[in-house]
Amino acid sequence: MINIAVLGYGTVGSGVVEVITTNKESIARRIGDDIRIKYVLDLREFPGSPIEDILVHDFDTIINDDEVDIVVEAMGGINPAYSFAKASLEHGKSYCTSNKELVAKYGPELLELSEKMNKNFLFEASVGGGIPIIRPLNQSLTADEIMEITGILNGTTNYILTKMSKEGLDFDTVLKEAQDLGYAERNPEADVEGYDACRKIAILTSLAYGQHVDYEDIYTEGITKISDVDFKYASKLGRVIKLFGKSKRAGDKFFAMVAPFMIDDNDPLYSVNGVLNGILVKGNVLGDVMFYGSGAGKLPTASAVVSDVVDAAKHKNTHIMQIWSSKKLELSDVGEAQSKFFVRMTGTADAKLEEVTEAFGDVQVINVENVTGEFGFVTGVMTETEFTQASEKVAGIITRIRME
Amino acid sequence: MINIAVLGYGTVGSGVVEVITTNKESIARRIGDDIRIKYVLDLREFPGSPIEDILVHDFDTIINDDEVDIVVEAMGGINPAYSFAKASLEHGKSYCTSNKELVAKYGPELLELSEKMNKNFLFEASVGGGIPIIRPLNQSLTADEIMEITGILNGTTNYILTKMSKEGLDFDTVLKEAQDLGYAERNPEADVEGYDACRKIAILTSLAYGQHVDYEDIYTEGITKISDVDFKYASKLGRVIKLFGKSKRAGDKFFAMVAPFMIDDNDPLYSVNGVLNGILVKGNVLGDVMFYGSGAGKLPTASAVVSDVVDAAKHKNTHIMQIWSSKKLELSDVGEAQSKFFVRMTGTADAKLEEVTEAFGDVQVINVENVTGEFGFVTGVMTETEFTQASEKVAGIITRIRME
Repeated sequence: MINIAVLGYGTVGSGVVEVITTNKESIARRIGDDIRIKYVLDLREFPGSPIEDILVHDFDTIINDDEVDIVVEAMGGINPAYSFAKASLEHGKSYCTSNKELVAKYGPELLELSEKMNKNFLFEASVGGGIPIIRPLNQSLTADEIMEITGILNGTTNYILTKMSKEGLDFDTVLKEAQDLGYAERNPEADVEGYDACRKIAILTSLAYGQHVDYEDIYTEGITKISDVDFKYASKLGRVIKLFGKSKRAGDKFFAMVAPFMIDDNDPLYSVNGVLNGILVKGNVLGDVMFYGSGAGKLPTASAVVSDVVDAAKHKNTHIMQIWSSKKLELSDVGEAQSKFFVRMTGTADAKLEEVTEAFGDVQVINVENVTGEFGFVTGVMTETEFTQASEKVAGIITRIRME
Repeated sequence: MINIAVLGYGTVGSGVVEVITTNKESIARRIGDDIRIKYVLDLREFPGSPIEDILVHDFDTIINDDEVDIVVEAMGGINPAYSFAKASLEHGKSYCTSNKELVAKYGPELLELSEKMNKNFLFEASVGGGIPIIRPLNQSLTADEIMEITGILNGTTNYILTKMSKEGLDFDTVLKEAQDLGYAERNPEADVEGYDACRKIAILTSLAYGQHVDYEDIYTEGITKISDVDFKYASKLGRVIKLFGKSKRAGDKFFAMVAPFMIDDNDPLYSVNGVLNGILVKGNVLGDVMFYGSGAGKLPTASAVVSDVVDAAKHKNTHIMQIWSSKKLELSDVGEAQSKFFVRMTGTADAKLEEVTEAFGDVQVINVENVTGEFGFVTGVMTETEFTQASEKVAGIITRIRME
């Protein structure tokens, strides 16, 4: 019998209980042993709920119960999750979590502790919700050097951008609608400013290269400046705009960035729409492989958490190797990162093309019907620094979006 | 030091040597030990090649060398692969293979033997080439009951169908071109008749449900009857035609089929084009998840084989559980399988609609510019048997393609 304790009975935590209850038999077959939820920890009461009898309010009850093999945390945030994780591992319990803040910040330390204790610290659900990506990175893409990871890693922003793209609406209107539907938080900052995607690409990049990427080092730009007019140009170019978390290896240099990109339909991520997530990984021998599915939501996320529980149960006294040392991966200056740029500028192309060409080199001009007083152009491939320098030589830039 | 022997120095075998040589360092880091290719077995000579010194012609050299930990087979076909696999496992060597014929036919027996010997029989590359799908099915989607698997599992046919769709060419023209480019065999039967996809969906379905699916039980229809005119109707309907390997659970019943399907852009497999493969898995709690990438090719396939080598090396004396018993999974009669059908019929809709409606119920009529003497229609959802019965009541059916 494998005994687990679930910390937090919110969306994901109650999903974990539901998944284990629903698929009890097939999960037991996978583990080769029965599984029981012995405790649910939450500060609230849930009178009349099926977990009423196993609800506890004090973490010590769990930590001091030697029968508990696996602690599942679905609370989010650094505190008290970090101390709960440490205490669980120190008491010889594996720890499975969907908590990306915790993993991005303390991943290497908790992995090291789990190795020392011969237990496991697993976090499949911390990136890509239900999409298997952490385990494939650790265990399937092992023959390759990872050259690039590009992900649509945040369902809220992808929902907003998809809706703007398909319906021609502006950002504020769609954000409000997303909030009313529960797809966006009342305080949407973590999503729309790219902070959520930033932690996720930090986790993936750390696992891909085996060294710790500090998410604070990652250049991060959200989608709040993306407008309905940008989408008119995108549409003219046969493109859509997506918020990418992206990291890349170029020789000995590593780049990482979160920013909106304008992409065409040659990009497998082009058709990843709505709240779905997609993660494209490029290996040096494998080429491109993409993982696609529900990046959030109660049951998909819980499914990923429970897959970790199954893995932890199958490896009760064996540490599963995940290479993520606390040695810091130094990211190169984002100024050296290269892309094309789409630019919107006040005035007319006729009047300004010479000035633009002098600053940016040859560009492709785009004019869109019913958009007046401005024009658009696409540069060649250049570095961020070159782009900034060129921008300073011209007047009237409204906005710029990177292009793949 | 982990010593491996590679059986067969053709496309995949030489790819395995290249991948291990190229990524020696990162592979060693993943394994936690050095890796060495001690032997390559091939009947041919390769004078001047880097493997000249490790080339052997006699399998006994390998099997009798206790230093060999892992045998990698990239020969294909049942003989002698089956006896090599058995002998390797019996001699305490793990066996990693890309050989779908072997796995589809002898999977359960060889898995049982590997368990008995506490070694591993791994076959990530047997389905989906470089795409991680076997390991995710076994180790990531463990919290779910798998409800449905739908895959574009054969790159050759997908290349042909994509080309027909985009360029309006007929089957024979595109097949010839594919043969000239090396994307199709001179004898293309295994691909275009769906036999290859059939073995692959048999393997995936067996792993999803833990019981053996005999590929000979799977209704299999290839793409040789798909014509350029079919694509004109598809295009009018905003659809494309894809060869699917498909299996489905409906209560206690299991269905499996290989056949062309007409799909729209709500299907994540819609944009899987050219030689690429995509596999969509539906879990009862997870929802849809898709895996996408190179389904064939020297290095992608070799990358998957080597990921198995890494796994076998990390589990030198531990059997990795894969649930696939020799107990046969009884598939339900394909006559009970349900879908919509697209039908082409001689004559005009005006003249025949009454007769068609009487046989099939309400249908959606499609006429295509420049296609005369016939018309198309789409039925509602019906079983295969109902469709056959209705077809017998009308005259002039040219072709039918299932629709999702």
